[in-house]
Amino acid sequence: MATSSTEISQPHQILIVNEEACREVIGRAEAFRAVESVFASMARGSAYNFPVVREAIGHADALYGFKSGFDQAGLVLGVKSGGYWPGNAAKGLTNHQSTIILFDPDTGRLKALVGGNYLTAVRTAASSAVSIAHLARKDAKILGMVGAGFQSTFQLRAALEQRNFKKVVAWNAHPEHLNRLATVCQETDIPFEVVSQQTLGAQSDVIITITSAFEPLLQADWIKPGTHLACMGTDTQGKQEVDQQLLAKARVFTDEVAQSISIGEAQHAVTQKLLSAEQITPIGGVINGTHPGRCSEQEITLFDGTGVGLQDLAVASAAASLADTHGLAQQVTL
Amino acid sequence: MATSSTEISQPHQILIVNEEACREVIGRAEAFRAVESVFASMARGSAYNFPVVREAIGHADALYGFKSGFDQAGLVLGVKSGGYWPGNAAKGLTNHQSTIILFDPDTGRLKALVGGNYLTAVRTAASSAVSIAHLARKDAKILGMVGAGFQSTFQLRAALEQRNFKKVVAWNAHPEHLNRLATVCQETDIPFEVVSQQTLGAQSDVIITITSAFEPLLQADWIKPGTHLACMGTDTQGKQEVDQQLLAKARVFTDEVAQSISIGEAQHAVTQKLLSAEQITPIGGVINGTHPGRCSEQEITLFDGTGVGLQDLAVASAAASLADTHGLAQQVTL
Repeated sequence: MATSSTEISQPHQILIVNEEACREVIGRAEAFRAVESVFASMARGSAYNFPVVREAIGHADALYGFKSGFDQAGLVLGVKSGGYWPGNAAKGLTNHQSTIILFDPDTGRLKALVGGNYLTAVRTAASSAVSIAHLARKDAKILGMVGAGFQSTFQLRAALEQRNFKKVVAWNAHPEHLNRLATVCQETDIPFEVVSQQTLGAQSDVIITITSAFEPLLQADWIKPGTHLACMGTDTQGKQEVDQQLLAKARVFTDEVAQSISIGEAQHAVTQKLLSAEQITPIGGVINGTHPGRCSEQEITLFDGTGVGLQDLAVASAAASLADTHGLAQQVTL
Repeated sequence: MATSSTEISQPHQILIVNEEACREVIGRAEAFRAVESVFASMARGSAYNFPVVREAIGHADALYGFKSGFDQAGLVLGVKSGGYWPGNAAKGLTNHQSTIILFDPDTGRLKALVGGNYLTAVRTAASSAVSIAHLARKDAKILGMVGAGFQSTFQLRAALEQRNFKKVVAWNAHPEHLNRLATVCQETDIPFEVVSQQTLGAQSDVIITITSAFEPLLQADWIKPGTHLACMGTDTQGKQEVDQQLLAKARVFTDEVAQSISIGEAQHAVTQKLLSAEQITPIGGVINGTHPGRCSEQEITLFDGTGVGLQDLAVASAAASLADTHGLAQQVTL
């Protein structure tokens, strides 16, 4: 096979950026910049997501798949692969498992293999933080958290940096998990209060929902004028975190309209014709200044964060580049 | 971020199996066994391919995408990512670039990163070889090769091992490339002759087509009774290597029926209602003994090799396991 094999024998160096290295180089600020920038590229049409593959594999109750895309502006091409393994927790492993693989868009050769667990958490947090930065009232004082799962602390920490919040109010279906959020508030020296869903609606200037709910946790008339909501939990057909009437009432923004109306929080309002795809604005338009964003102090803004592959690729690309610069990436020959 | 990050800080060892290691551990015999076995699993319904993602990315004229699947019998889960970069050759790189990524189906964690260029070549060769082993007449003497590109030498070497061939006849649109095949025949000490397409049809007992043709290169009435054809080049809508009437005349087999009728060689016969999906047999059925395969010495058999992700995963899994055993895999922490 000597003659043939030489034609495809082109060993090259790739970077391995493990979970530890990702944590070293990507903080909230880096994730925010990467996600904000790729949302802007998506809205300009210079970055797009490829079709999502998602399969129930019929083993270990796992959901497995890929999110992929290409950012022509940033020259970032790649895929996040992985999924949800519900039996992992019992083995001491994270149920959500992700790895991000980056390719050189000029040649198609693999460039970097990047651990995706920590990055998925920070990019999801960055997404709601970007929405708060661009859509919440400047004078927002009270942050409401609906949900207290593992991901909620990431959302909370990133949100707290966007406005001069004076208090956090929170509700969770299992109140015993709310100490996660209480701990973060203690660390960041901000008052924390467990409240009812109605009280949360009545008090909050900004609300983040980060649950796996299949029915509305907040009714439309509980939400006060001027509130900004970031609905981050709905990523599948059938899931729902807030009353669909709220989407009719609010000005709705999203990361990707196609996902928002099919698997995102907007799916129910769209199905019931309370909202149309044309009424949903990609948040990148606000970042780029082609859409004004919030149009009055009284309107309710709602960001439907569905989660797109380009977010993962953006933070992974930043991680690979920074880890390489700081000597934290392993180099291997492929 | 200390408290949160520990929850997702679960470093683990992964294997890196580079192109060099793949060539060391996977020969034609190993590829044959892996591909034959996964075709059998597919036909039994214990292995299936996920939807293919294929995108023209709008950069470097590249076609990029993923083939993925799960073999429940072999517990092989993963994805082949990569694509076609037409400008690579000018840079001294292979136009086709592939990497195969394997995951642990019990936890979703990445298990191995495997170079996919050499493996793609040998698994494609194994595919036509498996079809010859199971469908060609035992007394086949003359092998016809249509196409003389890079991949053709892999097909030829694998085919020569399946029957006691006495001569190779070949045709290519660009005759100057036929010396590739001549060299292989010289090395393996078998007579080689360049012939016209009609002569190739009249003489050959087994024919492999491995081109990128968009119109038939062989007419149905050029093919003699009892011939086995392995049509390996058609993997896209619009491509075609043989007269669609030949598919109406032959007993048709394939790796995956859904691909055969949509992007494979059978697409034209199916569109023109010369052939229906129900008339196409997964070759795994023949391997498993649930289909007799060739039913007479006189019938023409035709294997439509479309190429499925599970083939890549099967050879990559064998490569990872053998490379690990022989100390040829690099171990890194992700």
